[in-house]
Amino acid sequence: MLNYSLQDAYGGDGIEHGGSSDLQGYEEIDCNINGEYSIGCRKEGGEIYMPFSFLHKYFEVYGKLATYDGYERFEWSHSYSKVYYPKGKYDPRGIFMYFENYNVEVRDRVKCVSATEGVPVSTQWESQGYYYPTQIAQFGLSHYSKNLTEPEPRRTLLEDAERDLLAHWVVPNGATLSRVLDSHTGSHVVEFSSPDSVTSGISLKLDHVLDFMLSLTFKLAVNSSFTVVLQSREKRDQIFQLHYTCSDLLISAQDQHVYHGIGRCGQTQPWRRLTRDLIVDLHKGLAYQNKLKRKLSRSKLKVTGLTFHGSGHLDNLTLSTSEHLSQFYDAAQWLVHHQDSSTGGWPNPVRRRVAPGMADLEPGWYSAMGQGHALSVLARAYHHSGGDNSYLHSALAGLRPFDVASSAGGVLASFLGRIPWYEEYPTEPASFVLNGFIYALLGLYDLSTVAPAASHKAAQLFRQGMVSLKQLLLLYDTGSGTTYDLRHFMLGTAPNLARWDYHATHVNQLLLLATIDHDPLLTATAERWIGYMSGKRAAHN
Amino acid sequence: MLNYSLQDAYGGDGIEHGGSSDLQGYEEIDCNINGEYSIGCRKEGGEIYMPFSFLHKYFEVYGKLATYDGYERFEWSHSYSKVYYPKGKYDPRGIFMYFENYNVEVRDRVKCVSATEGVPVSTQWESQGYYYPTQIAQFGLSHYSKNLTEPEPRRTLLEDAERDLLAHWVVPNGATLSRVLDSHTGSHVVEFSSPDSVTSGISLKLDHVLDFMLSLTFKLAVNSSFTVVLQSREKRDQIFQLHYTCSDLLISAQDQHVYHGIGRCGQTQPWRRLTRDLIVDLHKGLAYQNKLKRKLSRSKLKVTGLTFHGSGHLDNLTLSTSEHLSQFYDAAQWLVHHQDSSTGGWPNPVRRRVAPGMADLEPGWYSAMGQGHALSVLARAYHHSGGDNSYLHSALAGLRPFDVASSAGGVLASFLGRIPWYEEYPTEPASFVLNGFIYALLGLYDLSTVAPAASHKAAQLFRQGMVSLKQLLLLYDTGSGTTYDLRHFMLGTAPNLARWDYHATHVNQLLLLATIDHDPLLTATAERWIGYMSGKRAAHN
Repeated sequence: MLNYSLQDAYGGDGIEHGGSSDLQGYEEIDCNINGEYSIGCRKEGGEIYMPFSFLHKYFEVYGKLATYDGYERFEWSHSYSKVYYPKGKYDPRGIFMYFENYNVEVRDRVKCVSATEGVPVSTQWESQGYYYPTQIAQFGLSHYSKNLTEPEPRRTLLEDAERDLLAHWVVPNGATLSRVLDSHTGSHVVEFSSPDSVTSGISLKLDHVLDFMLSLTFKLAVNSSFTVVLQSREKRDQIFQLHYTCSDLLISAQDQHVYHGIGRCGQTQPWRRLTRDLIVDLHKGLAYQNKLKRKLSRSKLKVTGLTFHGSGHLDNLTLSTSEHLSQFYDAAQWLVHHQDSSTGGWPNPVRRRVAPGMADLEPGWYSAMGQGHALSVLARAYHHSGGDNSYLHSALAGLRPFDVASSAGGVLASFLGRIPWYEEYPTEPASFVLNGFIYALLGLYDLSTVAPAASHKAAQLFRQGMVSLKQLLLLYDTGSGTTYDLRHFMLGTAPNLARWDYHATHVNQLLLLATIDHDPLLTATAERWIGYMSGKRAAHN
Repeated sequence: MLNYSLQDAYGGDGIEHGGSSDLQGYEEIDCNINGEYSIGCRKEGGEIYMPFSFLHKYFEVYGKLATYDGYERFEWSHSYSKVYYPKGKYDPRGIFMYFENYNVEVRDRVKCVSATEGVPVSTQWESQGYYYPTQIAQFGLSHYSKNLTEPEPRRTLLEDAERDLLAHWVVPNGATLSRVLDSHTGSHVVEFSSPDSVTSGISLKLDHVLDFMLSLTFKLAVNSSFTVVLQSREKRDQIFQLHYTCSDLLISAQDQHVYHGIGRCGQTQPWRRLTRDLIVDLHKGLAYQNKLKRKLSRSKLKVTGLTFHGSGHLDNLTLSTSEHLSQFYDAAQWLVHHQDSSTGGWPNPVRRRVAPGMADLEPGWYSAMGQGHALSVLARAYHHSGGDNSYLHSALAGLRPFDVASSAGGVLASFLGRIPWYEEYPTEPASFVLNGFIYALLGLYDLSTVAPAASHKAAQLFRQGMVSLKQLLLLYDTGSGTTYDLRHFMLGTAPNLARWDYHATHVNQLLLLATIDHDPLLTATAERWIGYMSGKRAAHN
């Protein structure tokens, strides 16, 4: 009843007043908000105008002035995230979700890309940096996807010593450089030596723009290193040096000098391939010193030199626009080599507090999202490599934690003892994070699709998970958005609402699943959740 | 990220622009809403002003202009309902919730108050009218509560024939009226006879204002009746006649004449007591003819006459301000006499569709809310009557449906086979309506409190229900309001959001429960839900 009286007091359906104007023009008027405080409004005829600065805070809506077609207007946005409509049926051999748009390694919470492993090091939950399987898998999946969506890279071979030396090497007195046949690979390679007495090392002068992916194969002696010189194309006196040293150092930097360790060296080491994004390495070096003002633009720099110190062999020295597949395989290799062989899990080496009232996750915990992402990487590596079983075996082992309860070190939770759930964070009590669960489902689907004969288990876990998803999906629906998890049900606390980018992730995941499961529940829910992003709400009684 | 960019584009924290003004004053500007449509806004300096008429519709917020303290302001209301803070610990012998504010019988969906039963007849789900146990119980509980909160009524005894006749009866030729001793009651009563040949009947001239509760005890012969004359105090020619006839007629009306049936008559009938709210009876008679412009004001009418036709006996003829206890006992008596003795249920005689996707409830269904409300009435009747066992026995029988599954004709549902729930609407699948469940809990608590020795069963059902409530409570929390039920979980559809008056009911029920159960979950949840009513929201991640 009061509802009505208020509307009447306001003047019924206010819209009809919307346009009405008043010759006296407008006047200032106080707006009292819920009897709590007042703000300055405007009155014009039968209409009250309220400042967006208030609405922006009160409702968390967004807006900006935009001028085009010759006039200025104000653009109101209820939310800020993007919906990705799948172009066709999801294919585990193809791009993962919309990860071709991701650029994992440039994120602030990535300390650097390890030069020993070729994968990102996270600082999200521990500032000195650690290997975070979920992030490493996303790094791999983004590069696998970019490889499918970006044009073929431009590659410039600087040196392969095959017929003759390609490059004009500058060899100082006391240093040596020659072209030799490597008995092991059967390929001609560069052999060099530049003793400590010679400070300059053997070097190449370059004037190379746009291509900043450096790759080479090498064998280096102890204490050897090499340095890449980058120069600003605008300010020629602005010079950066990227040093790659025979050490376990993750990253260090001082002024214009950035240091990455490529691991221990020695003539006994086998040939190694190294792929570095020089811009990312410089970027992280500057960030390391908090000297990064804004993202570095590739167009403002060029590669002007390359110097090798100490002694060793090198081959296939290349600069290219991108090396996505190499980076994808760096991630796949990391997963194969860092899996716990007894449990099949990829441990998260940091303590994690998910919510007050839940026990902390102790270092070594597994994540159903991390396991699932790993399956998505390994399934693609198995497919792309033409069936390399090391990837398949690692993926199959990665299924094991899905059958082990969170309390027993696995990732399996149960809703009221009735509905199984794969936990992104295997907390006690369970947290039921939605997006991590669906990412786990995608990993299971990927593996069961690329290796159907070998992975009945993955198919069964996927089917079981889809049933659970459909049973619990609506518990995340608030009628105007979604919750991130079900902690409110488990802990009796306020719901943990999903901010718009997580809400959009929920939508994008449902749209993707709807291409492989035609239950109308998925599409209908996704469409309603899309509506929430432009302010639509579920009906009230 | 986009989140930021939008805020930046808007000008960072908009608040600082809030007051800023511009000498050029304001200008018109289009606001484009989510890229979907445009509305007319105002621009003034760095601030955008948006019309409330738009916000009113977009967010369903309310507002009205109010002038006091000598100036006009606009009052913004996020919601429209009232929170009732309990004054002390809830006492089942005292007022029920805040029902002293209810006036059940004047609601539009009440066709009339039956003159044979003294309880309201509902048209909510069936237009010809039916007895709705939940509504009858609310009628009883509101009058019980009003009796405790309102001042003692003013009573004017018109006739009791005790020492002598009190009133100046007008007895036409051929009619008789005398004072006789009723052997059965041992009280002196009026005996009258006015054969059909005498059209006027025996009558009283009155000029009585303000008190419109008529009560009398009577025995009437077949086809007798009596008529009350009401006159407008402003328009003396505006006269209404309320006819109470010996028939089963519910209500009928033509022009100024309103007819209620008081049931079959005959000298064999025992003494009956009748209590009528004359204003309500007139109100319903006009509504019956759709002639009710607005609610009738008691101050605009007076009682000018009373006429008895046919023959019979009458006693204790009284006009009073209110007769809340009589009306309360009318409801309690109705419940005792209309309970299914085999099941203990109070049947709802209408088909009810709760939601598409749920099977209709067939006529005869029971409601845990109806059962619970009945327990609240009967517990109070048992207490107030000083222990009349007919009320206690009816109440104890009323517990039976709480143990019977909805599918078997009871009101017991189960959440995933784990959490028992008392269903306001025992649908298949279950609907888990929150407010009806809590009303059921209150009924169980009331009975277990006023008759602890006899009702261990009620206490056990109450304790079990409180455990269920605490387990499921947060599933109703959307972070900005509550849902009315859990149909979204059961059917996979949009949540059925609770409009603000239902949300306020949830809050008021939790505040009440918190006075008898000190689990902080109840208070913390109620406080958060109160915040939602002024636009506060749960945090997002």
